[in-house]
Amino acid sequence: MQVEIITIGDEILIGQIVDSNSAWMAQQLNLCGFGVKQISSVSDNELHILKALDEAASRASVVLITGGLGPTKDDITKKTLCKYFGSNLVFNEDVYNDVEKLFKDRGYEVTALNRGQAEVPAHCVVVRNQVGTAPGMWFENKGVVFVSMPGVPYEMMHMMETFIIPKLKTHFSAPIILHHTLLTQGIGESRLAEEISEWEEALPTFIKLAYLPSVSAVRLRLSGFGNDSTRLQNEFDKQLDSLKALVDKYCYGENLDTLELVVGKMLKASGKTLATAESCTGGQVAATITKVPGCSAYFKGAVVSYANDVKKDFLGVLQEDLIAYGAVSRQVVEAMARGIVKEMKVDYAIATSGIAGPDGGSIDKPVGLVWIAVADKDNVYAKQFLLGKNRERIIQAATLTGLNLLRRFMLNELAIE
Amino acid sequence: MQVEIITIGDEILIGQIVDSNSAWMAQQLNLCGFGVKQISSVSDNELHILKALDEAASRASVVLITGGLGPTKDDITKKTLCKYFGSNLVFNEDVYNDVEKLFKDRGYEVTALNRGQAEVPAHCVVVRNQVGTAPGMWFENKGVVFVSMPGVPYEMMHMMETFIIPKLKTHFSAPIILHHTLLTQGIGESRLAEEISEWEEALPTFIKLAYLPSVSAVRLRLSGFGNDSTRLQNEFDKQLDSLKALVDKYCYGENLDTLELVVGKMLKASGKTLATAESCTGGQVAATITKVPGCSAYFKGAVVSYANDVKKDFLGVLQEDLIAYGAVSRQVVEAMARGIVKEMKVDYAIATSGIAGPDGGSIDKPVGLVWIAVADKDNVYAKQFLLGKNRERIIQAATLTGLNLLRRFMLNELAIE
Repeated sequence: MQVEIITIGDEILIGQIVDSNSAWMAQQLNLCGFGVKQISSVSDNELHILKALDEAASRASVVLITGGLGPTKDDITKKTLCKYFGSNLVFNEDVYNDVEKLFKDRGYEVTALNRGQAEVPAHCVVVRNQVGTAPGMWFENKGVVFVSMPGVPYEMMHMMETFIIPKLKTHFSAPIILHHTLLTQGIGESRLAEEISEWEEALPTFIKLAYLPSVSAVRLRLSGFGNDSTRLQNEFDKQLDSLKALVDKYCYGENLDTLELVVGKMLKASGKTLATAESCTGGQVAATITKVPGCSAYFKGAVVSYANDVKKDFLGVLQEDLIAYGAVSRQVVEAMARGIVKEMKVDYAIATSGIAGPDGGSIDKPVGLVWIAVADKDNVYAKQFLLGKNRERIIQAATLTGLNLLRRFMLNELAIE
Repeated sequence: MQVEIITIGDEILIGQIVDSNSAWMAQQLNLCGFGVKQISSVSDNELHILKALDEAASRASVVLITGGLGPTKDDITKKTLCKYFGSNLVFNEDVYNDVEKLFKDRGYEVTALNRGQAEVPAHCVVVRNQVGTAPGMWFENKGVVFVSMPGVPYEMMHMMETFIIPKLKTHFSAPIILHHTLLTQGIGESRLAEEISEWEEALPTFIKLAYLPSVSAVRLRLSGFGNDSTRLQNEFDKQLDSLKALVDKYCYGENLDTLELVVGKMLKASGKTLATAESCTGGQVAATITKVPGCSAYFKGAVVSYANDVKKDFLGVLQEDLIAYGAVSRQVVEAMARGIVKEMKVDYAIATSGIAGPDGGSIDKPVGLVWIAVADKDNVYAKQFLLGKNRERIIQAATLTGLNLLRRFMLNELAIE
């Protein structure tokens, strides 16, 4: 069964807000096995809305509409739906009581404008809004279901979860859809595609792979579609296992994992502590680690040593190493990692030193060259990377690369290189 | 002139990513006076893409397409465009050289898959991609312009800014539009609206104000529309001056300024240096300061003191203060600021200590309570803030608040409070 989503409102078309509603709705629908055919954002214009409704209904069995239900003049969704279904607005006592109650709870009087919100098309099933003033509306017309909801994310989500998704599930029999995402770091999309091309070409038609690249990381999403639950699950698991084996050495997690979460869980589980010593990443590695709630259980702190004096005074880097090898070198990044382990009395460290640009590059040490080291009390491992030419992306890539190096260092994977 | 945006890719339709590209594009187009008629997200399916192209071309003079240009099999945009325009793929030497150069810079070999990225439809104008591998394509067909771009936000933005927007401006005659944005920090949208309501209500109809709120900051964008360039400019300048006078004490910059740029320029101009001592912000203040190229001229480094031991050992915070007042207190954050000024031998410091949550709050010190201090060699100024309940937003708000406090400290504005 296919669904279309239509969002109504000029604020999306002038780029004032990002349409995050549609992504959330699509996610919830996919989890139930309902596919989304198209998402369309249209203006607060009657003709345009009518056309969009027609186009959507020609492609899908369900059309979910959000927005344009506010009390002000520019919100015309309700009148337009009346026109589309040849219906008329009638006053609804229940909805009025809901609006009145909500206003009382917030200490306001109901205005004439809000009284208008209790008017609904005669031919719809009213979806009561328990957290706002605009009611939802469920229509059935020539075999297609249309549902209109408020654009306020919180109100829309509440209606979807409590009423619309359950009702869609009883109305339509959903096919089975399985998704699983493997997260990789440190290998580009095309090299990854080459390494798994043989496996990918042999995939059955009802299982598909998508590459979702971002800075320095690629997510691999495997999706399976079918009617026979057992057969689909078996084949899906088999293919997933094969893929896992193929990308094992690049894979740091699954689905909603992040590198900072994975590393954090490993540290927490082993009771170990971490600190960072950062030059070119400027605190980004620490800031990423501390995104995770509860990280104070394992993260003690960081020294951002942008200036060479700070490298010497806080991390014990030797003046002669800075002169002989330069700040961006194996010797210095190793000293930074060892220094922070010692000074902050932690079990593990990540250190970075590189040229984030746009200036400061040379032929020997171009912009994008980053030395990264990971260390514990006894050992240090350092490696250099070329991470492109854009300052922001170099910092982001160095951050993820550092976290993934630490993950592999803790798993004893680095010695084998 | 009307534009349509089509985003291609199953990842949007299953809700795996939020379509932020379209909002950015709509914003940029509106700034040039080009309206967006509809935004459509469609699947990686040939028939569906062909239909969407037809529908969009029937409504608009320009169709901007993003996504589906990767080197892998699930990316079918290029082939589909060939079909739509009755064209065929030809190998493009320039594009291949771009791809090869990009790979060399990153230390990779070009694969057969990437060689495929150098194939483009014979009838398009190639838009070189200076920051990625997939080229853009500009088509003209029956009076409608079609432009296909990569879905990677960074690559799409670069192409839009350097090539597509300028070309659209010469291709279509845009009306005269003036924009100027004032950047404020530390006052909410509704309080700001109240303070300037009298001025806003008296605005002439051809000048409009938009509130663009983000975490802990509100941008005020003034836009003027007209045909008489001189008259428009005069009235626009007059209104802008009035607005500037009204919001002066919250305003830290204009247009594309950022707090880190403004603070950086002030430090550079005065030859002063800066360091940070961060607890709840976890390195985010340092990471924000070091986004600015050339910041090593004034930024020496940071100590992220997540653990109390680090506050004592690296910043000289007293054990008795930690016990008597707790880590989140005026006494401790002032000691952190003074400590980092002394230890890193800098002219200025920013220090933060707060409860970013979701756990760790109490009645006296709830989640969102953040103490921030700024200091020089002689003085320290500290203040507490309540920055909401969401961890990510608390960290972001504390970062901007800290930078703005330092800006006002350097301007001697803080004593007057």
